[in-house]
Amino acid sequence: MLWPITAVRDPQGELTIGGVRVSELAAEYGTPLYLYDAATIRARCRAYRDACAAAYPRSRVVYAGKAYLGAAILGIIAEEGLWLDVVSGGELVFAVRAGFPPERIVLHGNNKSAEELALARRLGIGEIVVDNHHEIDLLETLARELPGSFDVLLRINPGIDAHTHEYRKTGIVDSKFGLLIAPGDAARAVERLLAIPGVRLRGYHAHVGSQINELEPFVAAVDVLFGFAAEMRARFGVVPEQISPGGGLGIQYLAGEPEPDIAAYAELVAGAVARAAAREEFEPPLLAVEPGRSIIGPAGVAVYRVGAIKEIPGIRRYVCVDGGMGDNIRPALYGAEYTAELADRAGGDGAPVTLAGKYCESGDVLIGAVTLPEPRAGDLVVIPAAGAYCLAMASNYNLALRPAVVLVGEEEGAARLIQRRETYDDLLTREVGQVGARSGSS
Amino acid sequence: MLWPITAVRDPQGELTIGGVRVSELAAEYGTPLYLYDAATIRARCRAYRDACAAAYPRSRVVYAGKAYLGAAILGIIAEEGLWLDVVSGGELVFAVRAGFPPERIVLHGNNKSAEELALARRLGIGEIVVDNHHEIDLLETLARELPGSFDVLLRINPGIDAHTHEYRKTGIVDSKFGLLIAPGDAARAVERLLAIPGVRLRGYHAHVGSQINELEPFVAAVDVLFGFAAEMRARFGVVPEQISPGGGLGIQYLAGEPEPDIAAYAELVAGAVARAAAREEFEPPLLAVEPGRSIIGPAGVAVYRVGAIKEIPGIRRYVCVDGGMGDNIRPALYGAEYTAELADRAGGDGAPVTLAGKYCESGDVLIGAVTLPEPRAGDLVVIPAAGAYCLAMASNYNLALRPAVVLVGEEEGAARLIQRRETYDDLLTREVGQVGARSGSS
Repeated sequence: MLWPITAVRDPQGELTIGGVRVSELAAEYGTPLYLYDAATIRARCRAYRDACAAAYPRSRVVYAGKAYLGAAILGIIAEEGLWLDVVSGGELVFAVRAGFPPERIVLHGNNKSAEELALARRLGIGEIVVDNHHEIDLLETLARELPGSFDVLLRINPGIDAHTHEYRKTGIVDSKFGLLIAPGDAARAVERLLAIPGVRLRGYHAHVGSQINELEPFVAAVDVLFGFAAEMRARFGVVPEQISPGGGLGIQYLAGEPEPDIAAYAELVAGAVARAAAREEFEPPLLAVEPGRSIIGPAGVAVYRVGAIKEIPGIRRYVCVDGGMGDNIRPALYGAEYTAELADRAGGDGAPVTLAGKYCESGDVLIGAVTLPEPRAGDLVVIPAAGAYCLAMASNYNLALRPAVVLVGEEEGAARLIQRRETYDDLLTREVGQVGARSGSS
Repeated sequence: MLWPITAVRDPQGELTIGGVRVSELAAEYGTPLYLYDAATIRARCRAYRDACAAAYPRSRVVYAGKAYLGAAILGIIAEEGLWLDVVSGGELVFAVRAGFPPERIVLHGNNKSAEELALARRLGIGEIVVDNHHEIDLLETLARELPGSFDVLLRINPGIDAHTHEYRKTGIVDSKFGLLIAPGDAARAVERLLAIPGVRLRGYHAHVGSQINELEPFVAAVDVLFGFAAEMRARFGVVPEQISPGGGLGIQYLAGEPEPDIAAYAELVAGAVARAAAREEFEPPLLAVEPGRSIIGPAGVAVYRVGAIKEIPGIRRYVCVDGGMGDNIRPALYGAEYTAELADRAGGDGAPVTLAGKYCESGDVLIGAVTLPEPRAGDLVVIPAAGAYCLAMASNYNLALRPAVVLVGEEEGAARLIQRRETYDDLLTREVGQVGARSGSS
């Protein structure tokens, strides 16, 4: 799916999402604006939950919050019964303050600090995914200093090369994530974890990358984890209660791209886990999967207003919008491709245009070539599949204000602001001293 | 220069900046931490001012604030007599509230909004650099609706290919910036601007790119601007009072790299302007240059603390620090290269290490290979030349907290916090509703 499930053109050709015209939302909340469709988020959560439940006796779906965290979104994720994967103290505190049940939170990270681990213990979170020996040093210290206990998974570097952007490969041998099996790092970690009071080793985790469109790497990761588990049983008598092949299933960004299939993914991973468990003679452990982009990506759309249009004769037409690399750095950072439509009229013919942003940088191009129906200043451009890793990576480059976020699709025709647009005041809150000459007119 | 001018190792081998040990600042203000050296900023401002004054009768140095804006830094820039180039309403309001004189502010941007132009007029800023015909439409409307006047420069797309990263080339024909001469766009803009009441066309501007290490493109830009100016004099009788070949001089990022020479740059640009003015028989106009990175880049250093260290046998050693792509996206975005040292001991031998960040992404690598003296957990890593386009592009990816900023070098041995570290509370300020279950312990 490219667009939220509630997205349709009304009889006047206006794009509506959740029964609300995008043009009305843009008029009310301004642009750039990000819209999330609650119905799509729920549908994707259920697709994962149901597919995993159908394919495997005991499973858990963990939302990877780094794709996008918003308090209202977390409310939906919690209601749908998912767990949450966080990767920093910031995400952890945000989630807990937003009301997400701490016992359903999993803490990831390749370089967790002592403070983050202590925070996780104080907040009583569900699990920690241990990444390295430095972290085990910190857990040893923590065990002496702070009461309580941790359920932990051990993150293995499975040495698998998934087909995705270099920056999104996380499971190759040359990775900063997880522990290698071959040199004995992972086994030594198991031995150390088993010796720490209050640490319960629940199982093993691997993550092969992000925006992956082929399913084989997930199967390979499962096989590596079970091979390691069998070795650990032989050496230390420890049996995994949980296995997690991470997340990373891709989404559709362009019309015509193949769409990764959640049900097929669940069946394949579940089948791999069941087979590997049988082969190695384990009771089938809990299967945990960690979709982020795959849940939130298709639920979000970005809405921009067109300003300047510039014709470079014989080369291209630049259509400049009021956002860009500050709210979506993915095109510049990964060469990510998007498509777009106008909010008030469908179609598009003639020569493609280049959709550029308003940032003072040549790399600030959102789409290199997209066909739109003769865009004019004031038109609204809508980019689908913008729910993941756009706002999550948003900056204040050029001191642009980060966009407002509106949730639709809770009830037909209803919309509510869930994250307010940044203000000029916000830009100054961290300045210390020196800010006095406030202008009354700004 | 790679390091701030006040940076020295003390007799114990500890790195000090402005007479303060970096390790003491890290202990007091935490990490990641950015340090700016006031002495270096002043020296760079004066180098530009003095070099331009020596080379040309009438010149203006304009600090390109998009490289980094902080209220305290702006205070120094203002005291040194520079003008300020801003590229958005956010930068404009920030600067004015920080006390920067509005009459010395220039507004840039390829897609300024009606609101930004109205704000500029209300605040009475010095100049606007007009980029395109849509903006002239907005100025025409504004002239009818709001009293006051604008001094404007017209931004020309000079069609020059400077040697720099694709994303930083701004003066090639295929650019979203400025107006082309050949198809008549620029001439038409002059004609239109001359007809708007309250708009005073002061001259012409071009910008060839950023982090440029060769000087020829600047000369070429000057020649294009004067050729155009002569044509406009012939057609409309208008004479430029100001010429600006923009900014973009590079800085040194690595030891051994050639260092772009401010004096040579000023002489070359001034010579080009003087020759072109003589050739075309113009009174020598005001020469405005717009350094950003070149002023603030070498004044800033980033300070991180080492956490996990991971050995990938036969491949590399990952040394993970507590910051990364959230506070400095330049390595991931541009392939930018940096070097690093440890704060408490100089030197370094043996195999180079890979300096990785703590973000959950494989692309989060700050330096691919750097030689450090056996780094251990707890060590402080210091990256020089981190003053420009690091914090300016910082995000809350992974909900990491943006770093604190400390100014040194005002007086020997003194340091002051000029931008406080973000807090967990800050991450929640824009959430609307839904945030209630605050945890007392976080």
